[in-house]
Amino acid sequence: MITLRDITEARKRIAPVLNDTPVHTSRTLDERVGVPVYLKCENFQRVGAFKVRGAYNALAQLGPDERKRGVLTYSSGNHAQAIALAGRLLDIETTIVMPHDAPDSKRRATEGYGARVVPFDPRQTTREEVARPIAEETGAVLVPPFDHEHVIAGQGTVALEIREQAPLAVELMTPCGGGGLLGGCALAWKETYDAPGATPSRAARPVVVGVEPALADDARRSFETGVIHTIRNPPTIADGTRTPFLGDLTFPLIQKHVDAIVTVSEQSIADAVRFLFERMKLVVEPSGALGVAALLSGAHEPAGPIAVVLSGGNVDPATFASILDGTIRFRDSEYQPPVPRV
Amino acid sequence: MITLRDITEARKRIAPVLNDTPVHTSRTLDERVGVPVYLKCENFQRVGAFKVRGAYNALAQLGPDERKRGVLTYSSGNHAQAIALAGRLLDIETTIVMPHDAPDSKRRATEGYGARVVPFDPRQTTREEVARPIAEETGAVLVPPFDHEHVIAGQGTVALEIREQAPLAVELMTPCGGGGLLGGCALAWKETYDAPGATPSRAARPVVVGVEPALADDARRSFETGVIHTIRNPPTIADGTRTPFLGDLTFPLIQKHVDAIVTVSEQSIADAVRFLFERMKLVVEPSGALGVAALLSGAHEPAGPIAVVLSGGNVDPATFASILDGTIRFRDSEYQPPVPRV
Repeated sequence: MITLRDITEARKRIAPVLNDTPVHTSRTLDERVGVPVYLKCENFQRVGAFKVRGAYNALAQLGPDERKRGVLTYSSGNHAQAIALAGRLLDIETTIVMPHDAPDSKRRATEGYGARVVPFDPRQTTREEVARPIAEETGAVLVPPFDHEHVIAGQGTVALEIREQAPLAVELMTPCGGGGLLGGCALAWKETYDAPGATPSRAARPVVVGVEPALADDARRSFETGVIHTIRNPPTIADGTRTPFLGDLTFPLIQKHVDAIVTVSEQSIADAVRFLFERMKLVVEPSGALGVAALLSGAHEPAGPIAVVLSGGNVDPATFASILDGTIRFRDSEYQPPVPRV
Repeated sequence: MITLRDITEARKRIAPVLNDTPVHTSRTLDERVGVPVYLKCENFQRVGAFKVRGAYNALAQLGPDERKRGVLTYSSGNHAQAIALAGRLLDIETTIVMPHDAPDSKRRATEGYGARVVPFDPRQTTREEVARPIAEETGAVLVPPFDHEHVIAGQGTVALEIREQAPLAVELMTPCGGGGLLGGCALAWKETYDAPGATPSRAARPVVVGVEPALADDARRSFETGVIHTIRNPPTIADGTRTPFLGDLTFPLIQKHVDAIVTVSEQSIADAVRFLFERMKLVVEPSGALGVAALLSGAHEPAGPIAVVLSGGNVDPATFASILDGTIRFRDSEYQPPVPRV
């Protein structure tokens, strides 16, 4: 069972090598939302996303034998680059199983950090089927994208930093894919709330809210029904939240510490990306803009000062351009509701 | 004659209301350039550009009578918004003479800060002809975009902040339009170099470099010949540097304190904007990316750690999209060399 201590230990572990990312604010945003909004800029984290916190925290705790055998994971997104960089920093060989049609930029970035990329065709096989023989042959340690205690503890360090950077914040909102960021941060947020030195405003009850795209609303459905729901390859532009379901470790954390999960439309996600570009000069990927989308669209109306995690900035130039010039196509008509996981 | 004291006084004046902008760094950039590079993020300044430093410093020093008469200026760019915001903060009425075909977003932003915008057709009249009767009627004080001591002193505060944020930097590079930023920063950089508390690395000689687009190379020509040259409406994408000539105040400052002015191609400016987007998650306007363009293209090869001013982030979404997706058209064939000002 993950505890606050795991997260504070993780923070000590990552502090020497990762970025203590800044918090940005905007008078315009505060006025529109009606309360102070603190944006935690994980787009300025190494590899351009919070994911490296969890990856580094996990790899740094491997024993000498495990390090020798190397690390294996599957991801087409930020977790791939995160594992690759963590491996390079710790001198551990890494192998990433990645769909063969993943964006070229992601593959090259991952290889650029020194990882071996093993492509596979998702129509012909699964990532697990590709990963298994590699694991058996090399003995490599599997470090999954979110359902892993050390990964979750690493992601929770985001909330610890916000506590110091925005001591007046009462609420915390993060995007939710597999729930590593939301679960880790929710635990940290709730359990540091009455910490010594807490400001008087903290008399208010702390609130944690998760956000996901309406097109990928498995987490909300799971949260509301108490049963993990699953969704296959949801057609949202927020590619970081296309994970099929919450994890066996992240779901109970979310059930215990999260107050609500809200959803936002594709259009509101694009609007938020554009707002962050125009008004704040920040490059944020669609998944990273979910919290701002929830505030600007009214999907969540905070009762007090709120911190929002901008989870990453890795968006390819063509997609970003299509959001800015309005040519991006939304695929709302392809929505498939989530179903209970069997 | 402007002195370091004017700049330190300006800093005290602006500190309570403007942003002390951050410095960002990138391992990739350091490796490519071969020395540490410190990027001063004026895209995160209020109104999205350094211009508000000079505007506020000028308006804050107006006497009660002048404040009552209001302030007048001409600009289609960041100076317009800067004067408008400074006016709002100081409760001074502002009027901006602006070409009627200025981007709608700029006009709305300027009006949003409470300024009155007076459009004119540059094919039929000049901004001076439009401004003169307004000044005569209202008695409004003209605060020009760069050739004004208080404006120059305000822009120089950028260099003072960098001194503290990047104490190891030996060189400083800024974009050059009318020379307010370059001149003010050059003076501050040179005259604080041997300040008490300077680090040992400062035994090296300080260097200041200006950058402008090759398509708008009037400053370089002026600098090299000792005679102010002029260029009319140069066809560069770096619209902040389309000013026709250096000023009577900025030119001598630049002659005295600047070591070199280098130029960069349109393609290298676009490449720099894209680099800042992809690798650093920063929204920077083309003029603001000139320094990074000079470093990545080799137009300037620094001998030691260098600070580079990212002067602003106000670029309209369509232009930014066209840079990202490569559809932007460069107008190199329309280049007209600068001629001596008569």
